[in-house]
Amino acid sequence: MKTKSTQPSDSALREVSVDCVMIGFHADELKVLILKWNDNWSLPKGQIFRSEKISDAASRVLKETTGIHDVYLQQFHAFGATNRYPNNKSKDNTEPESIISIGFYALVDFEKVTPNLTGAYQWCKISEIPDLLFDHNDMIELALVALRKDLRYLPIAKLLPQKFTLREMQKLYETILNRTFDRRNFHKLLMSYDFLVKLPEKKIGTANKSPHLYQIDLEKYETALQDGISY
Amino acid sequence: MKTKSTQPSDSALREVSVDCVMIGFHADELKVLILKWNDNWSLPKGQIFRSEKISDAASRVLKETTGIHDVYLQQFHAFGATNRYPNNKSKDNTEPESIISIGFYALVDFEKVTPNLTGAYQWCKISEIPDLLFDHNDMIELALVALRKDLRYLPIAKLLPQKFTLREMQKLYETILNRTFDRRNFHKLLMSYDFLVKLPEKKIGTANKSPHLYQIDLEKYETALQDGISY
Repeated sequence: MKTKSTQPSDSALREVSVDCVMIGFHADELKVLILKWNDNWSLPKGQIFRSEKISDAASRVLKETTGIHDVYLQQFHAFGATNRYPNNKSKDNTEPESIISIGFYALVDFEKVTPNLTGAYQWCKISEIPDLLFDHNDMIELALVALRKDLRYLPIAKLLPQKFTLREMQKLYETILNRTFDRRNFHKLLMSYDFLVKLPEKKIGTANKSPHLYQIDLEKYETALQDGISY
Repeated sequence: MKTKSTQPSDSALREVSVDCVMIGFHADELKVLILKWNDNWSLPKGQIFRSEKISDAASRVLKETTGIHDVYLQQFHAFGATNRYPNNKSKDNTEPESIISIGFYALVDFEKVTPNLTGAYQWCKISEIPDLLFDHNDMIELALVALRKDLRYLPIAKLLPQKFTLREMQKLYETILNRTFDRRNFHKLLMSYDFLVKLPEKKIGTANKSPHLYQIDLEKYETALQDGISY
Protein backbone atom coordinates (compact mmCIF):
# COMPACT_ATOMS: atom_id res chain seq x y z
CA MET A 1 0.00 0.00 0.00
CA LYS A 2 1.57 3.26 -1.05
CA THR A 3 0.52 6.17 1.12
CA LYS A 4 1.15 8.60 -1.71
CA SER A 5 -1.68 7.02 -3.65
CA THR A 6 -4.22 8.21 -1.12
CA GLN A 7 -2.91 11.75 -0.78
CA PRO A 8 -5.47 14.29 -1.89
CA SER A 9 -3.00 15.78 -4.39
CA ASP A 10 -2.97 12.48 -6.23
CA SER A 11 -6.11 12.58 -8.32
CA ALA A 12 -7.86 9.46 -9.51
CA LEU A 13 -8.23 8.61 -13.17
CA ARG A 14 -11.66 9.44 -14.52
CA GLU A 15 -11.88 7.14 -17.51
CA VAL A 16 -10.41 3.96 -16.04
CA SER A 17 -11.11 1.85 -12.99
CA VAL A 18 -10.34 -1.65 -11.69
CA ASP A 19 -12.65 -4.57 -10.91
CA CYS A 20 -11.70 -7.65 -8.92
CA VAL A 21 -13.00 -11.18 -9.35
CA MET A 22 -12.16 -12.93 -6.07
CA ILE A 23 -12.16 -16.66 -6.67
CA GLY A 24 -12.31 -19.11 -3.79
CA PHE A 25 -12.62 -22.90 -3.73
CA HIS A 26 -14.91 -24.51 -1.17
CA ALA A 27 -16.79 -27.79 -0.96
CA ASP A 28 -15.67 -28.80 -4.46
CA GLU A 29 -16.97 -25.60 -5.99
CA LEU A 30 -15.56 -22.32 -7.21
CA LYS A 31 -17.10 -19.29 -5.58
CA VAL A 32 -16.85 -15.58 -6.28
CA LEU A 33 -17.15 -12.75 -3.76
CA ILE A 34 -19.85 -10.22 -4.62
CA LEU A 35 -20.86 -7.05 -2.77
CA LYS A 36 -24.20 -5.36 -2.28
CA TRP A 37 -24.55 -1.69 -3.22
CA ASN A 38 -28.04 -0.43 -2.43
CA ASP A 39 -30.21 -3.06 -4.07
CA ASN A 40 -27.65 -4.27 -6.58
CA TRP A 41 -24.79 -6.73 -6.49
CA SER A 42 -21.44 -6.15 -8.10
CA LEU A 43 -17.80 -7.10 -7.97
CA PRO A 44 -15.43 -5.13 -5.75
CA LYS A 45 -14.49 -2.11 -7.87
CA GLY A 46 -12.63 1.15 -7.45
CA GLN A 47 -10.44 3.92 -8.74
CA ILE A 48 -6.86 4.08 -9.93
CA PHE A 49 -4.77 6.98 -8.70
CA ARG A 50 -2.63 8.81 -11.19
CA SER A 51 0.70 7.83 -9.69
CA GLU A 52 -0.29 4.33 -8.74
CA LYS A 53 0.61 1.06 -10.46
CA ILE A 54 -2.53 -0.61 -11.80
CA SER A 55 -1.81 -3.72 -9.75
CA ASP A 56 -1.36 -1.62 -6.59
CA ALA A 57 -4.73 -0.03 -7.29
CA ALA A 58 -6.32 -3.48 -7.51
CA SER A 59 -4.76 -4.53 -4.19
CA ARG A 60 -5.87 -1.33 -2.52
CA VAL A 61 -9.42 -1.55 -3.88
CA LEU A 62 -9.72 -5.12 -2.69
CA LYS A 63 -8.49 -4.15 0.76
CA GLU A 64 -10.72 -1.11 0.98
CA THR A 65 -13.86 -2.90 -0.15
CA THR A 66 -13.38 -6.26 1.53
CA GLY A 67 -10.54 -6.04 4.03
CA ILE A 68 -8.80 -8.86 2.17
CA HIS A 69 -5.10 -8.33 1.48
CA ASP A 70 -1.98 -10.22 0.48
CA VAL A 71 -3.70 -12.27 -2.18
CA TYR A 72 -2.47 -13.39 -5.56
CA LEU A 73 -3.86 -10.89 -8.08
CA GLN A 74 -3.64 -11.38 -11.81
CA GLN A 75 -4.62 -8.80 -14.41
CA PHE A 76 -6.59 -10.58 -17.12
CA HIS A 77 -8.42 -8.17 -19.43
CA ALA A 78 -9.34 -4.54 -20.07
CA PHE A 79 -13.03 -4.01 -20.76
CA GLY A 80 -14.19 -1.17 -22.97
CA ALA A 81 -17.22 1.01 -23.36
CA THR A 82 -19.13 -1.26 -25.70
CA ASN A 83 -18.96 -4.16 -23.32
CA ARG A 84 -19.73 -2.01 -20.36
CA TYR A 85 -23.08 -0.66 -21.50
CA PRO A 86 -24.92 -3.80 -22.47
CA ASN A 87 -28.39 -3.63 -24.01
CA ASN A 88 -29.95 -4.76 -20.79
CA LYS A 89 -28.94 -2.08 -18.34
CA SER A 90 -29.20 -2.61 -14.63
CA LYS A 91 -32.56 -2.10 -12.97
CA ASP A 92 -31.95 1.43 -11.77
CA ASN A 93 -30.15 2.38 -14.99
CA THR A 94 -26.86 2.79 -13.20
CA GLU A 95 -23.94 3.49 -15.48
CA PRO A 96 -20.34 2.93 -14.60
CA GLU A 97 -18.47 6.12 -13.88
CA SER A 98 -15.48 4.97 -15.86
CA ILE A 99 -15.42 3.91 -19.46
CA ILE A 100 -12.71 1.32 -19.31
CA SER A 101 -12.22 -1.16 -16.54
CA ILE A 102 -9.20 -3.34 -15.97
CA GLY A 103 -10.15 -6.74 -14.61
CA PHE A 104 -8.08 -8.65 -12.07
CA TYR A 105 -8.76 -12.02 -10.60
CA ALA A 106 -7.54 -13.19 -7.24
CA LEU A 107 -7.12 -16.74 -6.00
CA VAL A 108 -7.80 -17.22 -2.32
CA ASP A 109 -7.88 -20.03 0.15
CA PHE A 110 -11.53 -19.87 1.07
CA GLU A 111 -10.88 -21.09 4.61
CA LYS A 112 -8.28 -18.47 5.38
CA VAL A 113 -10.14 -15.47 4.07
CA THR A 114 -12.75 -13.78 6.19
CA PRO A 115 -13.76 -10.59 4.50
CA ASN A 116 -13.86 -7.70 6.92
CA LEU A 117 -16.81 -5.83 5.53
CA THR A 118 -19.25 -3.31 6.84
CA GLY A 119 -21.77 -3.85 4.05
CA ALA A 120 -23.33 -7.00 2.71
CA TYR A 121 -21.27 -9.52 0.81
CA GLN A 122 -21.68 -13.07 -0.34
CA TRP A 123 -19.48 -15.93 -1.50
CA CYS A 124 -21.53 -17.03 -4.44
CA LYS A 125 -21.29 -20.32 -6.35
CA ILE A 126 -20.20 -19.75 -9.93
CA SER A 127 -23.34 -21.50 -11.10
CA GLU A 128 -25.60 -19.24 -9.05
CA ILE A 129 -24.26 -15.73 -9.66
CA PRO A 130 -27.17 -13.26 -9.83
CA ASP A 131 -27.46 -10.42 -12.34
CA LEU A 132 -24.65 -8.05 -11.43
CA LEU A 133 -24.21 -4.37 -12.21
CA PHE A 134 -22.45 -3.20 -15.36
CA ASP A 135 -20.66 -5.94 -17.31
CA HIS A 136 -19.65 -7.82 -14.18
CA ASN A 137 -21.24 -11.12 -15.22
CA ASP A 138 -19.15 -11.08 -18.41
CA MET A 139 -16.10 -10.27 -16.32
CA ILE A 140 -16.51 -13.33 -14.16
CA GLU A 141 -16.89 -15.49 -17.25
CA LEU A 142 -13.73 -14.06 -18.83
CA ALA A 143 -11.84 -14.35 -15.54
CA LEU A 144 -12.56 -18.08 -15.58
CA VAL A 145 -11.42 -18.40 -19.19
CA ALA A 146 -8.20 -16.59 -18.25
CA LEU A 147 -7.77 -18.77 -15.17
CA ARG A 148 -8.03 -21.92 -17.32
CA LYS A 149 -5.40 -20.62 -19.71
CA ASP A 150 -3.10 -19.50 -16.92
CA LEU A 151 -3.45 -22.76 -15.05
CA ARG A 152 -0.07 -24.11 -16.04
CA TYR A 153 1.77 -21.07 -14.77
CA LEU A 154 -0.30 -20.04 -11.76
CA PRO A 155 0.08 -20.90 -8.09
CA ILE A 156 -3.30 -22.56 -8.29
CA ALA A 157 -2.62 -24.53 -5.13
CA LYS A 158 -3.17 -21.28 -3.24
CA LEU A 159 -6.87 -22.02 -3.60
CA LEU A 160 -6.38 -25.09 -1.40
CA PRO A 161 -6.18 -25.20 2.38
CA GLN A 162 -2.63 -25.36 3.68
CA LYS A 163 -2.91 -29.12 4.13
CA PHE A 164 -4.91 -30.97 1.54
CA THR A 165 -5.48 -34.38 0.03
CA LEU A 166 -4.62 -35.36 -3.53
CA ARG A 167 -8.33 -35.80 -4.13
CA GLU A 168 -8.91 -32.15 -3.18
CA MET A 169 -6.18 -31.02 -5.55
CA GLN A 170 -7.63 -33.13 -8.35
CA LYS A 171 -11.10 -31.75 -7.65
CA LEU A 172 -9.74 -28.21 -7.87
CA TYR A 173 -8.28 -28.84 -11.33
CA GLU A 174 -11.42 -30.63 -12.42
CA THR A 175 -13.61 -27.78 -11.22
CA ILE A 176 -11.59 -25.11 -12.97
CA LEU A 177 -11.25 -27.06 -16.21
CA ASN A 178 -14.77 -28.44 -16.07
CA ARG A 179 -13.63 -31.97 -16.90
CA THR A 180 -12.65 -35.11 -15.04
CA PHE A 181 -9.31 -36.84 -14.76
CA ASP A 182 -8.53 -40.47 -14.15
CA ARG A 183 -7.59 -40.59 -10.46
CA ARG A 184 -4.51 -42.79 -10.80
CA ASN A 185 -3.10 -40.95 -13.78
CA PHE A 186 -3.67 -37.60 -12.18
CA HIS A 187 -2.02 -38.60 -8.91
CA LYS A 188 0.89 -40.10 -10.84
CA LEU A 189 1.23 -36.85 -12.76
CA LEU A 190 1.18 -34.76 -9.57
CA MET A 191 3.77 -36.95 -7.94
CA SER A 192 6.05 -36.57 -10.96
CA TYR A 193 6.65 -33.02 -9.71
CA ASP A 194 8.67 -32.49 -6.59
CA PHE A 195 6.65 -29.71 -5.00
CA LEU A 196 4.18 -31.91 -3.14
CA VAL A 197 5.26 -32.87 0.36
CA LYS A 198 3.53 -35.89 1.88
CA LEU A 199 2.78 -35.32 5.55
CA PRO A 200 2.68 -37.99 8.23
CA GLU A 201 -0.85 -36.85 9.13
CA LYS A 202 -4.00 -38.17 7.53
CA LYS A 203 -7.24 -36.42 6.96
CA ILE A 204 -9.86 -37.60 9.39
CA GLY A 205 -13.60 -37.36 9.21
CA THR A 206 -13.89 -38.34 5.55
CA ALA A 207 -16.46 -40.93 4.55
CA ASN A 208 -14.27 -43.95 3.80
CA LYS A 209 -10.59 -44.32 4.42
CA SER A 210 -8.34 -41.59 5.78
CA PRO A 211 -6.29 -40.15 2.92
CA HIS A 212 -2.84 -38.67 3.39
CA LEU A 213 -2.45 -34.93 3.70
CA TYR A 214 0.00 -32.98 1.55
CA GLN A 215 1.41 -29.53 1.52
CA ILE A 216 3.26 -27.43 -1.03
CA ASP A 217 6.99 -26.73 -1.04
CA LEU A 218 6.64 -23.14 -2.23
CA GLU A 219 10.15 -22.80 -3.60
CA LYS A 220 9.93 -25.96 -5.71
CA TYR A 221 6.42 -24.97 -6.75
CA GLU A 222 7.62 -21.63 -8.12
CA THR A 223 10.34 -23.39 -10.11
CA ALA A 224 7.86 -25.86 -11.58
CA LEU A 225 5.49 -23.03 -12.53
CA GLN A 226 8.20 -21.26 -14.49
CA ASP A 227 8.26 -24.15 -16.95
CA GLY A 228 4.52 -24.68 -16.74
CA ILE A 229 2.76 -27.58 -15.06
CA SER A 230 1.19 -30.09 -17.44
CA TYR A 231 -2.03 -31.85 -16.64
CA MET B 1 -13.79 -0.31 -39.17
CA LYS B 2 -16.68 1.60 -37.69
CA THR B 3 -17.25 4.97 -39.34
CA LYS B 4 -18.88 6.27 -36.20
CA SER B 5 -15.60 5.93 -34.38
CA THR B 6 -14.05 8.60 -36.56
CA GLN B 7 -16.91 11.07 -36.41
CA PRO B 8 -15.86 14.33 -34.80
CA SER B 9 -18.67 14.06 -32.26
CA ASP B 10 -17.08 10.88 -30.95
CA SER B 11 -14.31 12.15 -28.74
CA ALA B 12 -11.24 10.11 -27.98
CA LEU B 13 -10.36 8.98 -24.48
CA ARG B 14 -7.69 11.12 -22.89
CA GLU B 15 -6.30 8.81 -20.27
CA VAL B 16 -6.11 5.59 -22.27
CA SER B 17 -4.59 4.57 -25.60
CA VAL B 18 -3.65 1.37 -27.43
CA ASP B 19 -0.26 0.09 -28.56
CA CYS B 20 0.33 -2.73 -31.03
CA VAL B 21 3.18 -5.22 -31.10
CA MET B 22 3.15 -6.62 -34.64
CA ILE B 23 4.97 -9.93 -34.61
CA GLY B 24 6.18 -11.52 -37.83
CA PHE B 25 8.27 -14.63 -38.46
CA HIS B 26 10.94 -14.54 -41.13
CA ALA B 27 14.14 -16.45 -41.78
CA ASP B 28 13.78 -18.39 -38.52
CA GLU B 29 13.45 -15.22 -36.47
CA LEU B 30 10.70 -13.25 -34.81
CA LYS B 31 10.52 -9.65 -35.91
CA VAL B 32 8.55 -6.67 -34.64
CA LEU B 33 7.36 -3.72 -36.70
CA ILE B 34 8.52 -0.36 -35.36
CA LEU B 35 7.81 3.14 -36.66
CA LYS B 36 9.90 6.28 -36.74
CA TRP B 37 8.47 9.46 -35.25
CA ASN B 38 10.89 12.35 -35.67
CA ASP B 39 14.13 10.88 -34.38
CA ASN B 40 12.57 8.22 -32.20
CA TRP B 41 11.25 4.73 -32.78
CA SER B 42 8.09 3.38 -31.23
CA LEU B 43 5.36 0.80 -31.66
CA PRO B 44 2.24 1.72 -33.64
CA LYS B 45 0.05 3.54 -31.12
CA GLY B 46 -3.15 5.56 -31.11
CA GLN B 47 -6.35 6.68 -29.49
CA ILE B 48 -9.52 4.92 -28.42
CA PHE B 49 -12.80 6.61 -29.27
CA ARG B 50 -15.45 6.78 -26.63
CA SER B 51 -17.97 4.56 -28.40
CA GLU B 52 -15.44 2.16 -29.83
CA LYS B 53 -14.58 -1.35 -28.68
CA ILE B 54 -10.98 -1.51 -27.48
CA SER B 55 -10.20 -4.24 -30.03
CA ASP B 56 -11.73 -2.14 -32.83
CA ALA B 57 -9.52 0.74 -31.77
CA ALA B 58 -6.46 -1.51 -32.00
CA SER B 59 -7.44 -2.65 -35.52
CA ARG B 60 -8.07 0.91 -36.63
CA VAL B 61 -4.81 2.21 -35.17
CA LEU B 62 -2.88 -0.53 -36.90
CA LYS B 63 -4.55 0.23 -40.21
CA GLU B 64 -4.07 3.98 -39.85
CA THR B 65 -0.42 3.78 -38.88
CA THR B 66 0.72 0.90 -41.09
CA GLY B 67 -2.00 0.10 -43.66
CA ILE B 68 -2.08 -3.46 -42.31
CA HIS B 69 -5.54 -4.89 -41.69
CA ASP B 70 -7.32 -8.18 -41.11
CA VAL B 71 -4.72 -9.51 -38.73
CA TYR B 72 -5.14 -11.58 -35.61
CA LEU B 73 -5.03 -9.15 -32.68
CA GLN B 74 -4.84 -10.26 -29.08
CA GLN B 75 -5.11 -7.97 -26.08
CA PHE B 76 -2.41 -8.96 -23.61
CA HIS B 77 -1.89 -6.37 -20.87
CA ALA B 78 -2.81 -2.90 -19.66
CA PHE B 79 0.21 -0.77 -18.75
CA GLY B 80 -0.06 1.89 -16.08
CA ALA B 81 1.58 5.15 -15.22
CA THR B 82 4.44 3.76 -13.20
CA ASN B 83 5.59 1.54 -16.01
CA ARG B 84 5.11 4.23 -18.60
CA TYR B 85 7.44 6.81 -17.11
CA PRO B 86 10.62 4.85 -16.60
CA ASN B 87 13.62 6.39 -14.89
CA ASN B 88 15.44 6.68 -18.16
CA LYS B 89 13.18 8.90 -20.23
CA SER B 90 13.50 9.17 -23.96
CA LYS B 91 16.13 11.49 -25.37
CA ASP B 92 13.83 14.41 -26.02
CA ASN B 93 11.94 13.86 -22.76
CA THR B 94 8.79 12.89 -24.62
CA GLU B 95 5.98 11.77 -22.37
CA PRO B 96 3.02 9.71 -23.46
CA GLU B 97 -0.20 11.69 -23.74
CA SER B 98 -2.16 8.93 -22.10
CA ILE B 99 -1.55 7.43 -18.70
CA ILE B 100 -2.69 3.90 -19.36
CA SER B 101 -2.05 1.95 -22.50
CA ILE B 102 -3.66 -1.29 -23.51
CA GLY B 103 -1.26 -3.55 -25.35
CA PHE B 104 -2.24 -5.82 -28.23
CA TYR B 105 -0.08 -8.16 -30.17
CA ALA B 106 -0.72 -9.25 -33.72
CA LEU B 107 0.57 -12.33 -35.51
CA VAL B 108 1.26 -11.84 -39.18
CA ASP B 109 2.56 -13.84 -42.08
CA PHE B 110 5.66 -11.81 -42.79
CA GLU B 111 5.54 -12.61 -46.51
CA LYS B 112 1.98 -11.47 -46.96
CA VAL B 113 2.24 -8.19 -45.10
CA THR B 114 3.66 -5.17 -46.84
CA PRO B 115 3.07 -2.17 -44.64
CA ASN B 116 1.67 0.73 -46.60
CA LEU B 117 3.40 3.53 -44.80
CA THR B 118 4.31 7.06 -45.63
CA GLY B 119 6.86 7.38 -42.84
CA ALA B 120 9.78 5.19 -41.96
CA TYR B 121 9.25 1.75 -40.57
CA GLN B 122 11.35 -1.29 -39.92
CA TRP B 123 10.83 -4.99 -39.32
CA CYS B 124 13.28 -5.40 -36.50
CA LYS B 125 14.71 -8.64 -35.14
CA ILE B 126 13.62 -9.23 -31.55
CA SER B 127 17.26 -9.41 -30.53
CA GLU B 128 18.07 -6.06 -32.13
CA ILE B 129 15.23 -3.77 -31.04
CA PRO B 130 16.62 -0.27 -30.37
CA ASP B 131 15.59 1.95 -27.46
CA LEU B 132 11.96 2.77 -28.09
CA LEU B 133 9.82 5.60 -26.78
CA PHE B 134 7.84 5.29 -23.56
CA ASP B 135 7.66 1.77 -22.14
CA HIS B 136 7.56 0.14 -25.56
CA ASN B 137 10.59 -2.09 -24.97
CA ASP B 138 8.86 -3.53 -21.90
CA MET B 139 5.71 -4.01 -23.95
CA ILE B 140 7.48 -6.12 -26.54
CA GLU B 141 8.96 -8.26 -23.80
CA LEU B 142 5.58 -8.80 -22.16
CA ALA B 143 3.92 -9.47 -25.52
CA LEU B 144 6.36 -12.34 -26.03
CA VAL B 145 5.65 -13.71 -22.55
CA ALA B 146 1.92 -13.56 -23.33
CA LEU B 147 2.47 -15.18 -26.72
CA ARG B 148 4.31 -18.09 -25.09
CA LYS B 149 1.46 -18.61 -22.62
CA ASP B 150 -1.21 -18.33 -25.31
CA LEU B 151 0.62 -20.67 -27.64
CA ARG B 152 -1.67 -23.62 -27.01
CA TYR B 153 -4.78 -21.67 -27.88
CA LEU B 154 -3.59 -19.33 -30.60
CA PRO B 155 -3.63 -19.69 -34.38
CA ILE B 156 0.12 -19.53 -34.30
CA ALA B 157 0.36 -21.08 -37.76
CA LYS B 158 -0.79 -17.71 -39.10
CA LEU B 159 2.81 -16.62 -38.69
CA LEU B 160 3.79 -19.15 -41.36
CA PRO B 161 3.53 -18.75 -45.12
CA GLN B 162 0.45 -20.42 -46.58
CA LYS B 163 2.50 -23.45 -47.57
CA PHE B 164 5.24 -24.47 -45.22
CA THR B 165 7.44 -27.37 -44.23
CA LEU B 166 7.28 -29.18 -40.90
CA ARG B 167 10.76 -27.87 -40.24
CA GLU B 168 9.47 -24.31 -40.58
CA MET B 169 6.63 -25.02 -38.17
CA GLN B 170 9.03 -26.57 -35.68
CA LYS B 171 11.36 -23.60 -36.02
CA LEU B 172 8.46 -21.25 -35.30
CA TYR B 173 7.63 -23.04 -32.05
CA GLU B 174 11.29 -23.23 -31.12
CA THR B 175 11.78 -19.53 -31.77
CA ILE B 176 8.79 -18.48 -29.71
CA LEU B 177 9.56 -20.82 -26.83
CA ASN B 178 13.30 -20.27 -27.02
CA ARG B 179 14.03 -24.00 -26.80
CA THR B 180 14.63 -26.89 -29.16
CA PHE B 181 12.54 -29.96 -29.84
CA ASP B 182 13.59 -33.37 -31.03
CA ARG B 183 12.68 -33.35 -34.74
CA ARG B 184 11.06 -36.79 -34.88
CA ASN B 185 9.04 -36.33 -31.71
CA PHE B 186 7.86 -32.91 -32.74
CA HIS B 187 6.77 -34.08 -36.19
CA LYS B 188 5.02 -37.07 -34.65
CA LEU B 189 3.23 -34.72 -32.25
CA LEU B 190 2.14 -32.40 -35.06
CA MET B 191 0.85 -35.29 -37.13
CA SER B 192 -1.19 -36.54 -34.18
CA TYR B 193 -3.47 -33.57 -34.91
CA ASP B 194 -5.62 -33.61 -38.00
CA PHE B 195 -5.25 -29.99 -39.04
CA LEU B 196 -2.08 -30.39 -41.11
CA VAL B 197 -2.69 -31.20 -44.77
CA LYS B 198 0.23 -32.74 -46.64
CA LEU B 199 0.47 -31.31 -50.15
CA PRO B 200 1.75 -33.16 -53.21
CA GLU B 201 4.25 -30.34 -53.78
CA LYS B 202 7.69 -30.20 -52.29
CA LYS B 203 9.73 -27.22 -51.29
CA ILE B 204 12.49 -26.62 -53.78
CA GLY B 205 15.63 -24.62 -53.42
CA THR B 206 16.53 -25.88 -49.94
CA ALA B 207 20.06 -27.01 -49.24
CA ASN B 208 19.65 -30.78 -49.08
CA LYS B 209 16.56 -32.80 -49.88
CA SER B 210 13.20 -31.33 -50.90
CA PRO B 211 10.82 -31.51 -47.94
CA HIS B 212 7.06 -31.83 -48.31
CA LEU B 213 4.91 -28.75 -48.05
CA TYR B 214 1.92 -28.58 -45.75
CA GLN B 215 -0.99 -26.27 -45.25
CA ILE B 216 -3.53 -25.76 -42.48
CA ASP B 217 -7.12 -26.97 -42.52
CA LEU B 218 -8.50 -23.89 -40.77
CA GLU B 219 -11.70 -25.48 -39.49
CA LYS B 220 -9.91 -28.43 -37.90
CA TYR B 221 -7.27 -26.05 -36.58
CA GLU B 222 -9.88 -23.95 -34.77
CA THR B 223 -11.34 -27.09 -33.19
CA ALA B 224 -7.92 -28.25 -32.02
CA LEU B 225 -7.17 -24.83 -30.54
CA GLN B 226 -10.31 -24.89 -28.44
CA ASP B 227 -8.90 -27.80 -26.46
CA GLY B 228 -5.37 -26.43 -26.62
CA ILE B 229 -2.49 -27.82 -28.62
CA SER B 230 0.18 -29.57 -26.60
CA TYR B 231 3.81 -29.42 -27.51
